[in-house]
Amino acid sequence: MSTVAIIGCGLIGQGWAIVFARAGWQVRLHDPDADARAEAPRLVRQQLDALERHGLLDDAAAVARRVEVADTLADALAGVDYVQENSPERLAVKQALFRELDRLAPPGAIIGSSTSSIPTSAFTESLPGRGRCLVAHPVNPPYLVPVVELSGAPWTDAATVERAGEIMRAVGQKPVVVRQEIEGFVLNRLQGALLQEAFRLVEAGIASAEDIDVTVKDGLGLRWSFMGPFETIDLNAPGGIADYCARYGGLYASIGATQRDCVAWEGELVDALQRQRREQLSASDLPARRFWRDDQLMRLLRHKRERRD
Amino acid sequence: MSTVAIIGCGLIGQGWAIVFARAGWQVRLHDPDADARAEAPRLVRQQLDALERHGLLDDAAAVARRVEVADTLADALAGVDYVQENSPERLAVKQALFRELDRLAPPGAIIGSSTSSIPTSAFTESLPGRGRCLVAHPVNPPYLVPVVELSGAPWTDAATVERAGEIMRAVGQKPVVVRQEIEGFVLNRLQGALLQEAFRLVEAGIASAEDIDVTVKDGLGLRWSFMGPFETIDLNAPGGIADYCARYGGLYASIGATQRDCVAWEGELVDALQRQRREQLSASDLPARRFWRDDQLMRLLRHKRERRD
Repeated sequence: MSTVAIIGCGLIGQGWAIVFARAGWQVRLHDPDADARAEAPRLVRQQLDALERHGLLDDAAAVARRVEVADTLADALAGVDYVQENSPERLAVKQALFRELDRLAPPGAIIGSSTSSIPTSAFTESLPGRGRCLVAHPVNPPYLVPVVELSGAPWTDAATVERAGEIMRAVGQKPVVVRQEIEGFVLNRLQGALLQEAFRLVEAGIASAEDIDVTVKDGLGLRWSFMGPFETIDLNAPGGIADYCARYGGLYASIGATQRDCVAWEGELVDALQRQRREQLSASDLPARRFWRDDQLMRLLRHKRERRD
Repeated sequence: MSTVAIIGCGLIGQGWAIVFARAGWQVRLHDPDADARAEAPRLVRQQLDALERHGLLDDAAAVARRVEVADTLADALAGVDYVQENSPERLAVKQALFRELDRLAPPGAIIGSSTSSIPTSAFTESLPGRGRCLVAHPVNPPYLVPVVELSGAPWTDAATVERAGEIMRAVGQKPVVVRQEIEGFVLNRLQGALLQEAFRLVEAGIASAEDIDVTVKDGLGLRWSFMGPFETIDLNAPGGIADYCARYGGLYASIGATQRDCVAWEGELVDALQRQRREQLSASDLPARRFWRDDQLMRLLRHKRERRD
């Protein structure tokens, strides 16, 4: 049986515990905070029970039994096959922690970081085992949103990226490879590009935030939930993507020329967006809506499984 | 019973016929091409049967009986409540056709165009009834993807936009209002912004087309199929969207500064994309994959109906 050490027991760490335990791995959870360690198994179990209720898991109790808590970093790392780090997004924290992880983890274990904003090279350069370190950036919660971005430093071994991809696929995730270090990796760069245009359209008075949301959830987002943007346009012209580019490249170039400048996400624009959103959903209803979102994700995941795409 | 005239019997016209007939409207289809007119009822029926097979329609035959073909424009327009125009995307064609539509349609009828690229003002300025004309831009097929972009000219009556929105909601669509004429309306501007970044990432060698597609279909696109981009970020920070902007606005501004320049959708880049796509899906499999896509959309639509979001 394979074993993973999950370092940091917050929401992301709990999510990773579920991903690995669900796939049959033995999971060791560690957090420097004793209260976080003590709470983690219960919080993991709650989420496992929700998955079982949605028909996404056969036996939550059996999965929960594969999750154990380790009181020290050394205990967590002893003999593991893979390490997933989930500490706060602060460079000094990651640097100090990766020094310890590289010192204590078995030589053959790959060490992945969940960071969404710090490049691998910033916290691994001086490590003896820097070749086995990389970013493995999940989406929250990783047991419902399977994509994982693998992004190594220039000195990360190619075999590390390859093996990390195999591990991720083996536990049911969908790894993608970010071939050079770049801010935002791929997912947040794509999201950012679309958001920038959404902010521009609101700022210019072209559309309301609500109508932009409708345009995505009742329009663009439907296909994008089972096809990516390239497959979408590949199917939208008789001769495939090259034909699509020949037909519509001019239109998109013309649109693109008006999408160069970003508006600042602050001041009156953000005040107006906050007002629009709070009219649709009061601040006190935000927590309940987050449960609704995760519920919707679970239903969608089950739907996708049933249709096997 | 309300009646709609659908002018132009191609794919989009057929799709609109289904939208209106499914909602109980009487539909008159007209096309200047006699062969297209003759073929249309059979093609509409095929699509209705597929909807019935997927449990999205109770009685395809009953819906089909509400669709009739009119041999002349005057016959199609007599006494209708609404007109949806779907002629080729050529300005001169739209100008000539709208002159006839405005002349022949009952005074109270709104006239909507399915154009995706021509602003209302370009083909309505000189019409006596220009106040009742607007773009009502669907996504194909409109009976599976409900968003409709309503975009009037400066002289389109506010009441026209409002009434068109009511009609669209009444037949089950999701209208959004584009408040000023702008190239690409909202949907293609959002799609274009994301595509431009996708093309940039492939051009720079950061990610493969396939990995970008995975990032969307197993990542971003899941939430976007039931929440828009604003609701997504509103739920992703404890204090809602203003809190999100305070936390991550700097990151997205930094990313945005590197997303200004568009790469041309031509030459070696497009050749490489076409090669990557054809490795995943041969040219001869494109038509079957389009049936798969529509099948997936129908399953997703049924899923969304069942969970009532």
